[in-house]
Amino acid sequence: METDHINNNHDRIVKKPAKTVSKLRTKWNLKTTAFAESTVNPIREIVDNLKFIPNPEKQFIPLSIGDPTTFGNLQPCSEIVEPVIEMLRLNQCNGYGPSTGRVEARQAVADYEARLNDVGSLTADDVIICSGCSSALELSIAALAENGQNILIPRPGFSIYQTLAPGFGVSLRMYNLLPERNFEIDLLHLESLIDENTAALVVLNPSNPCGSVFSKNHLLQIIKLAEKYYLPIIADEIYEHMVFPGKVFHSVSSLSKNVPVLSCGGLTKRFLVPGWRMGWVTVHDRHNLFKDVRKSLMKLSCRILGPNAAVQGALPRILTETPQSFFDETVITLQKHATIAYDILSEVKGLKPNMPEGAMYMMIGIDVDNFPEYATDLHFVKALVEEQSIFCLPGQCFQYPNYMRIVLTLPEDLIREACYRIAEFCEKHFKIDERIIQNAINNTVN
Amino acid sequence: METDHINNNHDRIVKKPAKTVSKLRTKWNLKTTAFAESTVNPIREIVDNLKFIPNPEKQFIPLSIGDPTTFGNLQPCSEIVEPVIEMLRLNQCNGYGPSTGRVEARQAVADYEARLNDVGSLTADDVIICSGCSSALELSIAALAENGQNILIPRPGFSIYQTLAPGFGVSLRMYNLLPERNFEIDLLHLESLIDENTAALVVLNPSNPCGSVFSKNHLLQIIKLAEKYYLPIIADEIYEHMVFPGKVFHSVSSLSKNVPVLSCGGLTKRFLVPGWRMGWVTVHDRHNLFKDVRKSLMKLSCRILGPNAAVQGALPRILTETPQSFFDETVITLQKHATIAYDILSEVKGLKPNMPEGAMYMMIGIDVDNFPEYATDLHFVKALVEEQSIFCLPGQCFQYPNYMRIVLTLPEDLIREACYRIAEFCEKHFKIDERIIQNAINNTVN
Repeated sequence: METDHINNNHDRIVKKPAKTVSKLRTKWNLKTTAFAESTVNPIREIVDNLKFIPNPEKQFIPLSIGDPTTFGNLQPCSEIVEPVIEMLRLNQCNGYGPSTGRVEARQAVADYEARLNDVGSLTADDVIICSGCSSALELSIAALAENGQNILIPRPGFSIYQTLAPGFGVSLRMYNLLPERNFEIDLLHLESLIDENTAALVVLNPSNPCGSVFSKNHLLQIIKLAEKYYLPIIADEIYEHMVFPGKVFHSVSSLSKNVPVLSCGGLTKRFLVPGWRMGWVTVHDRHNLFKDVRKSLMKLSCRILGPNAAVQGALPRILTETPQSFFDETVITLQKHATIAYDILSEVKGLKPNMPEGAMYMMIGIDVDNFPEYATDLHFVKALVEEQSIFCLPGQCFQYPNYMRIVLTLPEDLIREACYRIAEFCEKHFKIDERIIQNAINNTVN
Repeated sequence: METDHINNNHDRIVKKPAKTVSKLRTKWNLKTTAFAESTVNPIREIVDNLKFIPNPEKQFIPLSIGDPTTFGNLQPCSEIVEPVIEMLRLNQCNGYGPSTGRVEARQAVADYEARLNDVGSLTADDVIICSGCSSALELSIAALAENGQNILIPRPGFSIYQTLAPGFGVSLRMYNLLPERNFEIDLLHLESLIDENTAALVVLNPSNPCGSVFSKNHLLQIIKLAEKYYLPIIADEIYEHMVFPGKVFHSVSSLSKNVPVLSCGGLTKRFLVPGWRMGWVTVHDRHNLFKDVRKSLMKLSCRILGPNAAVQGALPRILTETPQSFFDETVITLQKHATIAYDILSEVKGLKPNMPEGAMYMMIGIDVDNFPEYATDLHFVKALVEEQSIFCLPGQCFQYPNYMRIVLTLPEDLIREACYRIAEFCEKHFKIDERIIQNAINNTVN
């Protein structure tokens, strides 16, 4: 015995390896892993495959990038930036925090969400600080859905769920939104998708790409359905309160009495700092149904160890000191741009723009039968960028063919210029659908 | 036809759900998921289970926290902090970057690693910017190891691999380090663990918790073994160049001619900003064996979308302008503290401190047979903190019982005070191992 065990030579007594050589690798064989293979960004794949070259004779205007800071016209105010600078100057937040986030940051989010969304009392323990809202969504999906289960997501909808869920063996079922009802959920279709393996319902409101904002009544119907089938809700509310004047944002958690909700948010859009990667999950659970889910979230947070600590340290000031006028100005700008785009594009034959009520996007229906040169929305947007140097995201990026999405965050003159060029393009390529003519003739003959 | 297809009502025709009610949930049933369950932080679990209360009559000194910034004596210099402040002030990096990181940041890391580690030319395409080194390790494991495979990790070693790998269905095989050879790898033991399912070899150098630094010759032996079995190497080099005067750090990638290497690093330790969560993977692959692995890394980066953009924007300046004297001062301080601790603790009966050569830790063997009140290192450190308010991490946190780890980053007076209290504790509780006495008697009798 003596002190030999200090050396801790556990299984140091090495047995002669009893393996047959044939079982070991005999060459380099390094393939992509299934987990990596299943991590797909559909937007990137579609856009990369388009392989377009903008018309070099016209200024390139990307209407594709869902980043409000790209053009410099929308910027965070000093009340957002200065607290981070202060934390850095004071060298106060250079160290690790708890993996779920610094307690002051979590408390600040709890207070902010409670105040803003009228959700009663939240505590720091109800909040997990994440590396952007995408990380908040990843944690929520991984905490609620098991390998072999499915979650319900909107179509059209942002593609992040498709990037995150399949790696966990979680499949996606897409419920339809109804464009003729301002992209409300088709509740019958949603209900038809639920089975015993459905683990959660994702509600994305306000919507990317639709710019729609659900009414209180519609949200109550959604919650009722979730309650009927005992489905927890993942509320993707990264665009919370980015609604145009006259509309009101209701958070799912403020309306749900019995359905437990994981609400995903962040500074990203409302505070115009997507690159800061500051997101959060808030846990809303009036009946203590999420006891195990909280445990899962805690454990999963050990994978990220929190986002940038200086931003976390600044969060209490950012969330309380940013003036309402800052938010108002952003929303008024977005509404103005939406109106400009809508007014121009609704006069264009073959297009059907949908006036948004919030967020920062507009969906535009493309009547591809009137553009016989282009088989799909993909061909349409490719021709548009190659001819007019205007790039819109094809609807297929949101699993919604025959539409395209434009962003509304560009400076006003660029929005206007872009819409005029879209109009010019459509005017040049629009053809009356021959089937409609034929139909009309047939009707006359009959 | 007309324009109806604009509405895009895919499968709007909803069939009456043909499901039996019994198959649907009839109650709330929200359990932890297997993925979350498998995400374990062994250190946290062990420490939480200790449930200790420090002696209220003595100042609590945590020697447990591997965060150099905790006590404020070690701080980043202005060349590290000011570039980030500048980026924030200029509102230049508030937006999203590419998911693999901003190209200037990737180029800066490529140049830094090439310059510092003599690894020949790296390009921006060889770098993926991650949210801290733990995220770099997660990407590397997920890119190299498939569900059902195993990776080889050091024992003792930091627990992050155990937190990250099991979620991917990747098991861990621990190869021994040899304390009597300054914690070099037991190559025979390592070799005995390799089988057809071994996907990668993790080399952690300099070592947490050992503070050991591998010689060039030892690294060449390790690489030779990896080449024999066609094993790519994950080089966890977050403590790169944090070596005491007289020692030289060699990166795995600088020595490997034929074995492809993913090297994981970051600002975290060397630049004293762990909370900034700025890490990276660099791809070293002289023979283009990592073609698919690069693809995997690209795809996986879509899950994190890069860390804080302002820190990314500042990276070129941070990595070129931070003066060598800053790094030198940190290392000299750490060596001084190590010497103080070693000098005090090597005089303590029942303890066997191991003089480190780098990083910021010291491993101390505990001859538990000489402390019969305490069955294991866990009991020992619990009693130590409850009596002396000195908390050390038990060796079991690193899968290495009968040791404890102390950090060397505290101010000098605290290190000294802590070591004196450890000595006092040991003096009080040390008992000569009766078995040794018995043994000696037996030997005399014989």
